[in-house]
Amino acid sequence: MAIITLTTDFGDKDYFAGATKGAIYTELPDAKIVDISHAVSPFNILEAAYIIQNAYSSFPKGSIHIIGIDSEINKENKHIALKLDDHYFICANNGIMSMLCSEITPEKIVEINIHDKIQSSFPVLDVFVKVACHIARGGTLEVIGKTISKIRPIRNVLPYVNDEKSQIIGSVIYVDNYGNVVTNIKRSFFETIQKGRPFEISARNHKFKKIYLKYSDIVNFDVPEEKRHDEGRGMVVFNSGNFLEIALYKSNSATVGSASTLMGLSLMDTVSVNFITKPLLHTM
Amino acid sequence: MAIITLTTDFGDKDYFAGATKGAIYTELPDAKIVDISHAVSPFNILEAAYIIQNAYSSFPKGSIHIIGIDSEINKENKHIALKLDDHYFICANNGIMSMLCSEITPEKIVEINIHDKIQSSFPVLDVFVKVACHIARGGTLEVIGKTISKIRPIRNVLPYVNDEKSQIIGSVIYVDNYGNVVTNIKRSFFETIQKGRPFEISARNHKFKKIYLKYSDIVNFDVPEEKRHDEGRGMVVFNSGNFLEIALYKSNSATVGSASTLMGLSLMDTVSVNFITKPLLHTM
Amino acid sequence: MAIITLTTDFGDKDYFAGATKGAIYTELPDAKIVDISHAVSPFNILEAAYIIQNAYSSFPKGSIHIIGIDSEINKENKHIALKLDDHYFICANNGIMSMLCSEITPEKIVEINIHDKIQSSFPVLDVFVKVACHIARGGTLEVIGKTISKIRPIRNVLPYVNDEKSQIIGSVIYVDNYGNVVTNIKRSFFETIQKGRPFEISARNHKFKKIYLKYSDIVNFDVPEEKRHDEGRGMVVFNSGNFLEIALYKSNSATVGSASTLMGLSLMDTVSVNFITKPLLHTM
Repeated sequence: MAIITLTTDFGDKDYFAGATKGAIYTELPDAKIVDISHAVSPFNILEAAYIIQNAYSSFPKGSIHIIGIDSEINKENKHIALKLDDHYFICANNGIMSMLCSEITPEKIVEINIHDKIQSSFPVLDVFVKVACHIARGGTLEVIGKTISKIRPIRNVLPYVNDEKSQIIGSVIYVDNYGNVVTNIKRSFFETIQKGRPFEISARNHKFKKIYLKYSDIVNFDVPEEKRHDEGRGMVVFNSGNFLEIALYKSNSATVGSASTLMGLSLMDTVSVNFITKPLLHTM
Repeated sequence: MAIITLTTDFGDKDYFAGATKGAIYTELPDAKIVDISHAVSPFNILEAAYIIQNAYSSFPKGSIHIIGIDSEINKENKHIALKLDDHYFICANNGIMSMLCSEITPEKIVEINIHDKIQSSFPVLDVFVKVACHIARGGTLEVIGKTISKIRPIRNVLPYVNDEKSQIIGSVIYVDNYGNVVTNIKRSFFETIQKGRPFEISARNHKFKKIYLKYSDIVNFDVPEEKRHDEGRGMVVFNSGNFLEIALYKSNSATVGSASTLMGLSLMDTVSVNFITKPLLHTM
Repeated sequence: MAIITLTTDFGDKDYFAGATKGAIYTELPDAKIVDISHAVSPFNILEAAYIIQNAYSSFPKGSIHIIGIDSEINKENKHIALKLDDHYFICANNGIMSMLCSEITPEKIVEINIHDKIQSSFPVLDVFVKVACHIARGGTLEVIGKTISKIRPIRNVLPYVNDEKSQIIGSVIYVDNYGNVVTNIKRSFFETIQKGRPFEISARNHKFKKIYLKYSDIVNFDVPEEKRHDEGRGMVVFNSGNFLEIALYKSNSATVGSASTLMGLSLMDTVSVNFITKPLLHTM
């Protein structure tokens, strides 16, 4: 039996997520339901896009992902179902899938047309569950919608590069549980532009010349532990999703602070990378 | 195997919910456990009543619902189990079930008497799990308690109507994840009193003359998107649970604000509906 | 199929917990995954130790517990797997297990050595899931690591007792969802030192001479309900984990306040118990 995952802005208090799971079990008693997140900021499409992009590929092929963000149907916000990378996604056509689709071409996109005349204010329960169960039972996308060729894009999914390829202008697209600040600059994209050149990353008045691959690489273990001052030090990493991230080592917004709180970095703030074109003798 | 759901005020950090699930799996390895909510405000019976009322009916018949709010047993707070609408509910007799029981008559109520002499401060783990597993194995309610005919009521479950039936005085009973404010005025009750008359809804100094059936019905799609100013506009809907709700369109307490933050509406605040008895030419 | 539990500081928003579950299901489609908590404060080892200690024993023997707190591997933070009380634990060797190991001797501890050259910033996904699935399939600890005899300790796990055994100096190790304040003084330890003597517990300027076994034992049910003033009264209990806890009756940090907010008690604050050695006529 296929896995059905849930990514929503329902929060952890309301009955919405519980009712959705109940409706799935009512249709499919053997369903395997997995919560990815119900704590997406209300109506925040970019956050949802980032979360689903980084979570989905750990699941088995054939998994079905319900994404319930800004999903009330209206003439400008239709419901879609996609097959992409052998996974299924069900959501509103509001841009949530454009980050993932910019990397991997969907095999199939349909605009869902199983709605009857009921005007529902709970489309995840009333429509997405039905579509997910249809797919889980082996049904095809063609049965529940008409094929379309494009989905709606969102802004700020991709960073900007200047013509000389000497600068990348990225944006903060996510702040994680540790207060670390994730940009839209992916490692593969960065390295394609970088071509081995040294660089300087700027976020507000903070500058970084090195990108780490894990957080504790910033620690100098040759110094005795009591003489180190690493906790709370700013750093840049490619995170586990391969996004460029501005972090504090052992960050905690509530105690030592975080990149978000201490550097004042919020969603949509600019992070830029300047490449030093004249070859220098030192490397990164 | 029946589904066992959990609705508690345990929060998402403590070991309480995890330990409860472990205890269920220890008794019933094939149990299917579903979290409805662990984020009920501590000891808030009305919130719990609202959540369980709106979640339960999406689950399959025969599901068993553990409600762990203010459930420490003492001489004034006994434990009960109910069968209602072919679902089972296990909770303290503190009023949680009175909202649901005011709509649907329970088939059976028992006061649980399986407690031994142990004074437990964790009754969900020590008592409710045992009762739930007993029911899941096909056991009857009579075995674990003595039949009673009535449960304890709570206040503010039902709105007040004046003798002339010209006014409904309701209360805010829930504030949801979007900051939308839910009243205790149900659609069926409203329409019974309304009898088609126009009306004015008052909440603090805010007035509304229309009730929508979904949120985006407030949008005028004939106006170009860049000229609309709908986000954050106040409105009234019957929500997906059919309760009258004061909402903001695309509300978010942390950014654009919400009905709760912007209108200053909190739990137990009054929301009134005045019906215009003299027939008018315009309709709602 | 064994149960795999998750206790982490991932929070409820990020993709980390979802991706971890997906990876487990990819390796073991029939796994039973249970969230214990993803809301441990970032990098807070003591909180994690307290949560896992109180949750694990409700699960069936043979359960596998992944603890993802401060788990990035480096030369000072190795990964370990333990068998203890017929349960398995997988975590970093950073002290998380020292609270539990101070009570129950592990049958087996191994330092995990299945890491290849990849420097991972997401060890729960990349390492712990593999180890958990190996154990769930019946694999032995010896295959995935080399046996070690000791784990790293943490401070503040055990309270201090003076030479005259007239005083216990404990610490606050946890603040729960209700704002109740848990100390590191366990009931068995307390009673061993107490030997039946009366006592006075001090936390800041608050004094207590009685320890309750459940919260509502503070209520005098002989007084009519409307004349009682119990809600919000301070009290000491042995909580369901048998830790000495300073609580408010029907506490709620957001409304009536809590032991944490009203008494100003935070993590690592001191709570002391003074025993009255001269025999007195009145008992506790």
